[in-house]
Amino acid sequence: MIPQPVVDIAEICALKGIRHAVLSPGSRNAPLLLAFARHPKIETHVIPDERSAGFIALGIAQKLKRPVVLVCTSGSAVYNYAPAVAEAFYSTIPLVVISADRPPEWIDQRDGQTIRQSGIFGNHVKRSFDFPDQYSNQDVKWHCHRIVNDAINIANCGSPGPVNINVPLREPFYPEKSENIHYSKDIKIINEPLSKSKLHVDDFDHFEKSVSGYNKVLFVVGQTPSNSQLRNTLGDVAKSVPVLCDIISNAQSVEGVITNQDLILANYPDNDLSPDLLVTIGQSVISKNLKGYLRKHRPTAHWHIQPSGDVADTFQSLTEIIRSDEIDFLNSISSEFDSKPDYLQKWHQLENKVEAQISSISGWWELPITKSILEQCPNECQLHLGNSMPIRWANYVGCKKEQIEVFSNRGTSGIDGCMSTAVGCAMACDETVLVILGDLSFFYDRNALWHNELPPNLRIVVLNNHGGGIFRLINGPSDLAELGEYFETDQKLNTSNTIKDFEIEYLSATSETNLAKALETFFLIDGKAKLLEIFTDSSINKVEFEKVRAGLKKL
Amino acid sequence: MIPQPVVDIAEICALKGIRHAVLSPGSRNAPLLLAFARHPKIETHVIPDERSAGFIALGIAQKLKRPVVLVCTSGSAVYNYAPAVAEAFYSTIPLVVISADRPPEWIDQRDGQTIRQSGIFGNHVKRSFDFPDQYSNQDVKWHCHRIVNDAINIANCGSPGPVNINVPLREPFYPEKSENIHYSKDIKIINEPLSKSKLHVDDFDHFEKSVSGYNKVLFVVGQTPSNSQLRNTLGDVAKSVPVLCDIISNAQSVEGVITNQDLILANYPDNDLSPDLLVTIGQSVISKNLKGYLRKHRPTAHWHIQPSGDVADTFQSLTEIIRSDEIDFLNSISSEFDSKPDYLQKWHQLENKVEAQISSISGWWELPITKSILEQCPNECQLHLGNSMPIRWANYVGCKKEQIEVFSNRGTSGIDGCMSTAVGCAMACDETVLVILGDLSFFYDRNALWHNELPPNLRIVVLNNHGGGIFRLINGPSDLAELGEYFETDQKLNTSNTIKDFEIEYLSATSETNLAKALETFFLIDGKAKLLEIFTDSSINKVEFEKVRAGLKKL
Repeated sequence: MIPQPVVDIAEICALKGIRHAVLSPGSRNAPLLLAFARHPKIETHVIPDERSAGFIALGIAQKLKRPVVLVCTSGSAVYNYAPAVAEAFYSTIPLVVISADRPPEWIDQRDGQTIRQSGIFGNHVKRSFDFPDQYSNQDVKWHCHRIVNDAINIANCGSPGPVNINVPLREPFYPEKSENIHYSKDIKIINEPLSKSKLHVDDFDHFEKSVSGYNKVLFVVGQTPSNSQLRNTLGDVAKSVPVLCDIISNAQSVEGVITNQDLILANYPDNDLSPDLLVTIGQSVISKNLKGYLRKHRPTAHWHIQPSGDVADTFQSLTEIIRSDEIDFLNSISSEFDSKPDYLQKWHQLENKVEAQISSISGWWELPITKSILEQCPNECQLHLGNSMPIRWANYVGCKKEQIEVFSNRGTSGIDGCMSTAVGCAMACDETVLVILGDLSFFYDRNALWHNELPPNLRIVVLNNHGGGIFRLINGPSDLAELGEYFETDQKLNTSNTIKDFEIEYLSATSETNLAKALETFFLIDGKAKLLEIFTDSSINKVEFEKVRAGLKKL
Repeated sequence: MIPQPVVDIAEICALKGIRHAVLSPGSRNAPLLLAFARHPKIETHVIPDERSAGFIALGIAQKLKRPVVLVCTSGSAVYNYAPAVAEAFYSTIPLVVISADRPPEWIDQRDGQTIRQSGIFGNHVKRSFDFPDQYSNQDVKWHCHRIVNDAINIANCGSPGPVNINVPLREPFYPEKSENIHYSKDIKIINEPLSKSKLHVDDFDHFEKSVSGYNKVLFVVGQTPSNSQLRNTLGDVAKSVPVLCDIISNAQSVEGVITNQDLILANYPDNDLSPDLLVTIGQSVISKNLKGYLRKHRPTAHWHIQPSGDVADTFQSLTEIIRSDEIDFLNSISSEFDSKPDYLQKWHQLENKVEAQISSISGWWELPITKSILEQCPNECQLHLGNSMPIRWANYVGCKKEQIEVFSNRGTSGIDGCMSTAVGCAMACDETVLVILGDLSFFYDRNALWHNELPPNLRIVVLNNHGGGIFRLINGPSDLAELGEYFETDQKLNTSNTIKDFEIEYLSATSETNLAKALETFFLIDGKAKLLEIFTDSSINKVEFEKVRAGLKKL
């Protein structure tokens, strides 16, 4: 008999609104696989490599903004989720990781696929739960139901994130021929609706009064999911103070915002761009130059608005943590923002100069190539940016199409799951999902494609410069004898052989002309996933980007 | 300036006998990469995917029986080592995992590639060390040198295993143009030579006297590295008591040992094979039937001989933990072993019957295919057995060639690093390294091949039945509607496209005739790694194996 509380996990997940489960095959997890596979309200995705499975689940959860279940067998399988769990933790994405385990008496007894799973994700989950392994106590049903409720509530509420439910299972793992899997009718649900944080009136008044005391107010938007209401609010703010938006802010389409801060500050000698008051929302910012500039020229005050969760002092000047819904707070206070006009003007002057310079760039290298792709991708596309260089190129180019939602694994900024995350997104939506990534990211994560449900709305662009191009672009390694072997990695592969194994149309480009031609059909919706491999040369990327940098010195 | 104590890590490793470092590219770990890359006494291997890198290092360390260094950058990269670290922990293989980290003040501040690395491997390392992040205190040099000494000593001594040194690093990560990397001359080394455990005389006497009190003594050899002295000793033991040896015991070539216990006990109805005294050495046993039989028919006493480290009560009857070198103890006591002759005879009768049955099996399915391969592989080959079915087929077939050393990741029994482990072994030796694995294991771990130093002595055999064949073979899932999609995984790939990307000769076989032909050249030494893909059918494997099982009922 499969224990009823184990079967009921799937039912509680469904009752609490979970609609997707990403499953990896195994034997010990068979009761969990069957409970999810047979549940009429849950869509399942079978992914053999747990590392990719973790990021695919993350991609689905990120897109749908609701928890997604992961199920794997016991042993090292669980540890393969760890990179995605860490990314989910820092990106505040709700994942419910359900790991099958041996029962406690068999841990460390030299049976197969058995490791010390209890609490395995350490500090990178919001909570770890151990399911009971025996069911005779009268409170055990309540205990089991409560664990699943708690886990989902914790994953979903406040600042979302991953949780782990570790489920010890004894044989039999499979139902008898006569045994039907059914879900209990009397399941206990503990609801926890999402809530809004709001400051006490006195505290809000304090902020409202003090804001006018600052001459130079700067607003920075970190990584934020696409939100049109927030964009409206930021439009108001941008009328009176400079609002700096990286591409992952999902706010570059807002009129009047600044998007070229990274290039503006690349060589900026003066401190006149530094604010008295810095106001921030969202998660990480891409621009290393912005971080460096503000850490050097520190504002008197830094207010960070974040309703809940851990707060970082990214600019070393944090003074106020404002626990409020961002839109509510900004709508109430934005009329009080009142920078000196020449401060706002200065930012806009520089923005325009850099904008003009960027728009004039052409040639066969990765910045203008990225520009062409972003210009020609559909207006409603879901854009995933791979780590290392692709997200940087895209950030230089910018994206002002309002309906494009931009995603990137910037919680840990790893290259290990960029493609899987995009695959998950494509499984969860109908829009075109475009992922731009480097060759190292592609091969590292190629098991993203190894399963039987490749979504036809997936479009993969690989910028193949045969190595970690970033190392040639940054100072330090580019002059070392070890550059090729130890930093760039000198990887020789093209994607074409890998792609032959999948139902993916392959296109490639080696010049502006055939890129233009490839882009004519690449985004067409014709029932097939597509990959566009673009061959570039690291040395040319370096030379051309240095010209851009040199131009910036004359701002 | 790169901190001298960081550079000195490589020198201490070299002085303490470490000869291999497996490096994965990154920027924050640049000081470590350079320190190892430039060290004249350390051979470095650059592997981009940290999951594969971990298992490659494990394969080298396992072959050489000495610690191997791993170096990666900060962030989720570190977590990709976790599956290999867990395997090393349970397989008692010494790994020194050196992870670059942000300095403590920048953890959780939304900078890239930053997670909570301190103690990240939890209960799956022997010890975790945090390197200092400042160097002004007068004791810091001693502290740094001591950490590296302690880490290597702990990894290497007693029961070996993985350790982690987490190294916080601040910019600059790269030397100035004028800056030379040099290693300190006055490095402090703490030596810890390996030692032997020996019982006190009184305790030994107690064992020596009591052994003759048992009528039925059974000896089981768990996973053990190849050791000709141990084989000599086991030859003596096998004269008086049944000695059960799985293929991973590296003792199947010893005259008189039993190798077919798994099939003998597959349907064995009586309890007459159960011992009064069970004596064991080594780590895990493969045979689930043996474990089941001995757990059901428990011996009065179970002595496990293991010089140090955690001991498992695999058969639920452990009574004595004997902390002694196995060979010393057995040489001293083997003349006292004295089973009833008919007990030994009974085991040998059954062994001969099963042996006859196995040797008569032919046809196009995975058991006789595995037999052909093991018959024709070179006498001095290093044999790596993939998890799930390949190790089971090989265990049914057995391997009596004394010079073949058999390896398998049976610490956690995962499929996640079987090929990488073999690649590591091939990097560390000149002999032919043969790895036999299933299609799921191959694709899961294909980044084992993604680097620039594929060893020409590598021979990969993939038993491709397009899925997890084990699920069709075991009772339970084979009758479920979900078998194909949720258990077998129904993966459609052949290896040929993957292989095109590498300097690997591709051979394939679909019948006994072309397998014979392929094997004529497969093992030839001609400067190139080779892969032999063997296509089989899960349904036929099932039908044929059921015939074997049916034959066993008449033993």
